Amino acid sequence: MSMPPLVSLLSDFGTRDGYVGAMKGSVLSHCPDARIIDVSHHVPPQDVRSGAFLLARAVRDLPPTTAHVAVVDPGVGSERRAVAARTAHGAWVVGPDNGLLGDAAAGGDLCVVLDPERVAPGTTPSATFHGRDLFAPAGARIARGDDPRGLGEETRPPQRLERPVRSADDGIEAEVVWIDRFGNAITLLEPADLEAMGDDVEIVVDSLVLRGLSRTYADVERGRPLAYWGSSGTLELGQREAHFADRTGIGRGSRIRVRPRAGS
Amino acid sequence: MSMPPLVSLLSDFGTRDGYVGAMKGSVLSHCPDARIIDVSHHVPPQDVRSGAFLLARAVRDLPPTTAHVAVVDPGVGSERRAVAARTAHGAWVVGPDNGLLGDAAAGGDLCVVLDPERVAPGTTPSATFHGRDLFAPAGARIARGDDPRGLGEETRPPQRLERPVRSADDGIEAEVVWIDRFGNAITLLEPADLEAMGDDVEIVVDSLVLRGLSRTYADVERGRPLAYWGSSGTLELGQREAHFADRTGIGRGSRIRVRPRAGS
Amino acid sequence: MSMPPLVSLLSDFGTRDGYVGAMKGSVLSHCPDARIIDVSHHVPPQDVRSGAFLLARAVRDLPPTTAHVAVVDPGVGSERRAVAARTAHGAWVVGPDNGLLGDAAAGGDLCVVLDPERVAPGTTPSATFHGRDLFAPAGARIARGDDPRGLGEETRPPQRLERPVRSADDGIEAEVVWIDRFGNAITLLEPADLEAMGDDVEIVVDSLVLRGLSRTYADVERGRPLAYWGSSGTLELGQREAHFADRTGIGRGSRIRVRPRAGS
Repeated sequence: MSMPPLVSLLSDFGTRDGYVGAMKGSVLSHCPDARIIDVSHHVPPQDVRSGAFLLARAVRDLPPTTAHVAVVDPGVGSERRAVAARTAHGAWVVGPDNGLLGDAAAGGDLCVVLDPERVAPGTTPSATFHGRDLFAPAGARIARGDDPRGLGEETRPPQRLERPVRSADDGIEAEVVWIDRFGNAITLLEPADLEAMGDDVEIVVDSLVLRGLSRTYADVERGRPLAYWGSSGTLELGQREAHFADRTGIGRGSRIRVRPRAGS
Repeated sequence: MSMPPLVSLLSDFGTRDGYVGAMKGSVLSHCPDARIIDVSHHVPPQDVRSGAFLLARAVRDLPPTTAHVAVVDPGVGSERRAVAARTAHGAWVVGPDNGLLGDAAAGGDLCVVLDPERVAPGTTPSATFHGRDLFAPAGARIARGDDPRGLGEETRPPQRLERPVRSADDGIEAEVVWIDRFGNAITLLEPADLEAMGDDVEIVVDSLVLRGLSRTYADVERGRPLAYWGSSGTLELGQREAHFADRTGIGRGSRIRVRPRAGS
Repeated sequence: MSMPPLVSLLSDFGTRDGYVGAMKGSVLSHCPDARIIDVSHHVPPQDVRSGAFLLARAVRDLPPTTAHVAVVDPGVGSERRAVAARTAHGAWVVGPDNGLLGDAAAGGDLCVVLDPERVAPGTTPSATFHGRDLFAPAGARIARGDDPRGLGEETRPPQRLERPVRSADDGIEAEVVWIDRFGNAITLLEPADLEAMGDDVEIVVDSLVLRGLSRTYADVERGRPLAYWGSSGTLELGQREAHFADRTGIGRGSRIRVRPRAGS
């Protein structure tokens, strides 16, 4: 059986207000056999950095045939552009060009500026809800197989936020970009970032120093903190059967440092 | 491709307890190819007024082939009627006849009292969960094309709550019916309500006076309040990149007044 | 129309982080026409007892063709087994063998230990996210009709947690296993447990004594507490149009006692 058209939704809309349902109605109006996957609607309101992280992760986790519609859009109604971009692996991301799509679309080769007249001919998008009126229809049309070049002119790739990783005197420093429900603190550090340091590293955050990386929670005793390559492929800090962030006060934006182990 | 059977769900069940999943199982048992859209399950418990607002908005936003199942039902197990009603545009709403369906069904021409024996022959609905046992099966059967007149006797239209809009000495007064996740305060005032006043109006709530309506957030400076026609087509008050309700203390039930601009 | 493949999902993942979307992507990759029903993703983190309760209820509420994927898995990455088990009515439950599946699978006749090599050949599950990498693929394959015996060796039935019901001097005692959104306190007491006591019972919790069982909320006055057979078929305590748990301080783990009525 072949894969049905897939549309994912990511937003800061929450699930109380019916806005997500309205987007789904819009998707199904343009692509009745679409399968819709909610990535998250709990991006903190207007927090583009968090949205960009979750979108990039969804692009990696979901089938490459997915059209991802992402809406974290403090500038709705302003002159910010609305775009659709192809990712390096052939998925599409659709949303405002405010940095939200940048990480997900990195390495992609095609981007169009959405033209409301071409996306949903004969209608006028509302001034405050492009998720329903522009992005959902565009994602649905791409999912059903329409040529995205028919939705607007080709343009430069989506804007990308600065990568929250930088070199430090004695190693590398990264910001925590997300705290998940279990209290794990997630960075964007990848294995390649640490390659030059060899295997014997220590991870430092505030006064906490962790020696080396663990494979999984069960490798440490209950209640102990650990650093490990998370399910997203990037460095995470957590605590076995405990909420690391609550216990340590570490949060979104905290800096962690990885360096060769002292004295080793 | 033709539209599959669509069922929307709206309730005060929340999403922690599995009650929504039980309703979906019931829908699929009666209509295996139904597509189910969650409108909201976060209506404040037993708050029929909020449910009525969200349901009317969903009926406007979702395709007119949708059967909307709505359950905010403090009187479950009592003598309150269970009904299905056709809306003015041909959609159906299904739920308790306690005011929840009234706004959505306004102008509709057909309503039936649901008879459990006809909706789900050979079963007895539980005394506390008509969402699963009566409303979901009824909605599913309507979505799949069964004649709703086969589910019970025709009856008067659903009850309707009083419209929270009234004339005031110098203009018109409306209650805030919903605060959304972004802190926008939503009323049921429509453009027709303000027509007689002309374009030069002011909006007053407590000590705050807003001059005129804006088109969208980007029309005012960051942090400034504004009034605008929201994506639902009714008057909303909000604040650019800020949570209007938290900043001002305005909430559900607060009264706002629109009047011709003083001195104009 | 025949029932499409059904997969239910239950977890403690919450809905903020995108983990549920990743599981759904995995399900659809292995079974493109699966219909996915969310039971709950708000099991308190790592609370296996609550998850077991919700899963058993979902197995009862959803069609018997469903493959239920359940993930509350504090021991992920350790030696705890991953299993799939057939329930007494022919549904399947898939998850870690830590007690989560026990109540749902009680009376079932077949259980296999999931072998990652057979479930998803050519891939290696991550050390921390078996929901996406092992359980979702296994559930999807069972839903699409693959023989579960092809996923691993047959083994003993899933572990089962102790039943939180016991005899007491003058009747029977049970723990509250779940507080729902409306504040109802749910036990696992079934009608058979009370049979020997006859109809004239009283329910005692802390200093509250309820005389007899009611049929539904509408049987008592507004604001009054009541005991009744809930929609799950077990004994619940609630309060008409009020939040019983908040009002009384009764919570998960509180003990309630049922005994023949004093003096009767």
